Amino acid sequence: MTVGQDPTAAVLIIGNEILSGRTQDVNLNAIARGLGAVGIPVREARVVPDTRSAIVEALNILRAQHTYVFTTGGIGPTHDDITVDAVAAAFGVPAIENPAARAVLVDHYGADRLTPARLRMARTPQGAELVANPVSAAPGIKIGNVFILAGVPDVMRAMLDGIIPTLRPGPAIYSKTVSAYIAESVIAEGLGAIAARFAQLDIGSYPWVRDGRFGTALVARGTDEQAVAKAAEEIMELVLAMGAEITSSAA
Amino acid sequence: MTVGQDPTAAVLIIGNEILSGRTQDVNLNAIARGLGAVGIPVREARVVPDTRSAIVEALNILRAQHTYVFTTGGIGPTHDDITVDAVAAAFGVPAIENPAARAVLVDHYGADRLTPARLRMARTPQGAELVANPVSAAPGIKIGNVFILAGVPDVMRAMLDGIIPTLRPGPAIYSKTVSAYIAESVIAEGLGAIAARFAQLDIGSYPWVRDGRFGTALVARGTDEQAVAKAAEEIMELVLAMGAEITSSAA
Repeated sequence: MTVGQDPTAAVLIIGNEILSGRTQDVNLNAIARGLGAVGIPVREARVVPDTRSAIVEALNILRAQHTYVFTTGGIGPTHDDITVDAVAAAFGVPAIENPAARAVLVDHYGADRLTPARLRMARTPQGAELVANPVSAAPGIKIGNVFILAGVPDVMRAMLDGIIPTLRPGPAIYSKTVSAYIAESVIAEGLGAIAARFAQLDIGSYPWVRDGRFGTALVARGTDEQAVAKAAEEIMELVLAMGAEITSSAA
Repeated sequence: MTVGQDPTAAVLIIGNEILSGRTQDVNLNAIARGLGAVGIPVREARVVPDTRSAIVEALNILRAQHTYVFTTGGIGPTHDDITVDAVAAAFGVPAIENPAARAVLVDHYGADRLTPARLRMARTPQGAELVANPVSAAPGIKIGNVFILAGVPDVMRAMLDGIIPTLRPGPAIYSKTVSAYIAESVIAEGLGAIAARFAQLDIGSYPWVRDGRFGTALVARGTDEQAVAKAAEEIMELVLAMGAEITSSAA
């Protein structure tokens, strides 16, 4: 990425269990919120199976297009944890036993309980740095602009919390949401006119159902704080002018 | 896709609200489970913003590589609903007002209440068929091997339920899960040996935390029912041999 451009991010979710429906992913949402809070928008996410070629191909595309890439999953001690090898292959470097990672594991398990399976978690692509894991010791990994994080949500979030202060922040992203018992189709025309007037913002319309009643969340989002506030005001006026009940209005 | 090969699917989730973290996607999981039940594995998923070029590019890759592609989101009446136009662009056809879709909307809203915003939901790529929406009328769309579904989960699932019986099923996928209070690193070696013996299966290991105690879900999955049963048996024997408590064992 060209330095000086606003930073962007992509997320690569690795795991058969997500694609089979066995596991509901919640990591994309946590990463999107965490990065959004420091002005780094997630622009794309992909979910791929535990297959080396799929990981390599997706990662090489995403890391070329974004300032940061976050992978989740596949860094445990079992045979199906192949993320480290795949990322190493993507970078064209060998996967090695990382002395710093080994030291972390020795410290956690004790040298006498460092089984071959646990030692698998000391492997990193050559040239990588470690990402602290305050929950369960086995570290995450940083190589180039790629952060390799755990798949277990508690562990992933703890790693992410440590990483975020080290990232280059982007311009703050502001957001205001007006929720109302109003059908999208009723407000569409007026909302479209507001969106056209605030072309620098992302004006979104998200229908919901609550106890059988239909409503819509109307969101103004962007880096221009004043414009976000003004657009939200106009959205509220529009909703009220249509005689609809506002259920919430929040940042 | 070559006819005769086992079918595969991809999911394209369209929506700024998923990438901003405003909305937690649950549609991938529902599609993965629904298709898995008829032997159609989801092999890849992508999340892209409400941007025409991003949708076109991702869709053209996915529809060339998979038997079926399911998109979710962006088919409502508002200015940010651009999926129909983007899919039409991907197929190189115009987006038109579809007479059959218009008829559905007339039937639902009444001809006199068919506002321009509501009529937007009658637009489809030229040559497309409709997908029934038993929840809120505005239809989904099928064009080629691509199904264009709603983003609202209740509506998406109702559309999917109607589509699944029309798909070419794949070989049944069997799955057995053994959950136990055992650390992944403890069982990794034995599990790897089982995975090597059952190379035709997908043997997965998924750590979890419950009330502060660590456990692992061990999953055998594949189209060979007998092998799945045998592998699950060996996994149970392995867990018991390590003295761990099994918390559940289920299909």
